[in-house]
Amino acid sequence: MPAEPGTVRPGGRTARVRAAVLRAAGDVLAEQGFAHLDLADVARRAEVGKTTVYRRWGSVTGLVADLLADMAEQSLHRTQTGSVLGDLRANADLVQRTLADPRQGALFRAVIAAAACDARTAEALRRFYDVRIAEWAPCVEEGVVRGELPSGTDAAAVVRAVSAPLYYALLTTGTPPGPAAADRAARAAFAAAAAGVYVTGEGHREQDT
Amino acid sequence: MPAEPGTVRPGGRTARVRAAVLRAAGDVLAEQGFAHLDLADVARRAEVGKTTVYRRWGSVTGLVADLLADMAEQSLHRTQTGSVLGDLRANADLVQRTLADPRQGALFRAVIAAAACDARTAEALRRFYDVRIAEWAPCVEEGVVRGELPSGTDAAAVVRAVSAPLYYALLTTGTPPGPAAADRAARAAFAAAAAGVYVTGEGHREQDT
Repeated sequence: MPAEPGTVRPGGRTARVRAAVLRAAGDVLAEQGFAHLDLADVARRAEVGKTTVYRRWGSVTGLVADLLADMAEQSLHRTQTGSVLGDLRANADLVQRTLADPRQGALFRAVIAAAACDARTAEALRRFYDVRIAEWAPCVEEGVVRGELPSGTDAAAVVRAVSAPLYYALLTTGTPPGPAAADRAARAAFAAAAAGVYVTGEGHREQDT
Repeated sequence: MPAEPGTVRPGGRTARVRAAVLRAAGDVLAEQGFAHLDLADVARRAEVGKTTVYRRWGSVTGLVADLLADMAEQSLHRTQTGSVLGDLRANADLVQRTLADPRQGALFRAVIAAAACDARTAEALRRFYDVRIAEWAPCVEEGVVRGELPSGTDAAAVVRAVSAPLYYALLTTGTPPGPAAADRAARAAFAAAAAGVYVTGEGHREQDT
């Protein structure tokens, strides 16, 4: 069935069912948290048969894992501004807008909370961040090639350093970070990287912490 | 009743009851998470009358709020090493050891998860971090006086910058940060602070002193 570009995701009925179910699951997580997620309720909200939801996702944790996989698939490509600081600012801006968005911010808090007590959700969350970091790491690697940062800089560590203060602010104070915090996060990660803080030793890269 | 120093907390029976109940509450949070916290179970574990627990704490959220207040009271005083970097390293080391401790790390994850969906816990958590930051901020302020960091540096922001990557690692990967991550967190916060990233006011981006 033809549709206007952007109005439905490609892939036919199966993909549309998935999109509707994941949208409903995200809504419940953002509104009420992981403890209130229920497959029958999600099916009702998504206007999809309960049997379909049970057969396809099996459990609440299976549904959250698929939601995180979808979020990773849908996550935006990195911005290429021509400088490391510009790229890190673009990344910080994206993280900040995500966490400050009422639905998205609540969704991340709910999923991170669920990961604290559910191993499958924790694994899906790790994979989500692996995808995000792999997407943005080249901006640091290219900066090293251009001579903006010292060689041996751990690109993943720099990308994580941009996100860390923004997540920390949201998770410990409950207040989403603003644009000034995003700018500061990017400048702090760049200054530390330029000072060689993220240079890893020969042959013994530090653990991904 | 006399006791060896350090074997019981001072304050008589009321204080001992509080210590036993908060210890039990922390154990349940660390082992099973907020959703499993139950006043009757805590009373049983603490070997304290159920009525006492209900009368004094009223609810699970009241109990968690008091636990966080107690953790703030018990939190260690800052170390004074004579240099900002030394002090930030001492702080990073303390945060890292706390988060890497199986009981403490699980306890923090549980409380942060609970704060995502409970306003009273969120407020108690904010107060806990306010106490921690107020304790350590003077090490940055003294560094500014000694000329190690630019004047106008936001001391609280620097202290938060030390903690952020350590909490972020634990909360998004589930793996507690190690000593190398703590050292890197302290060096990153110091490098960014020295570069003027945390200078506030007048919209100046760079240190101008």
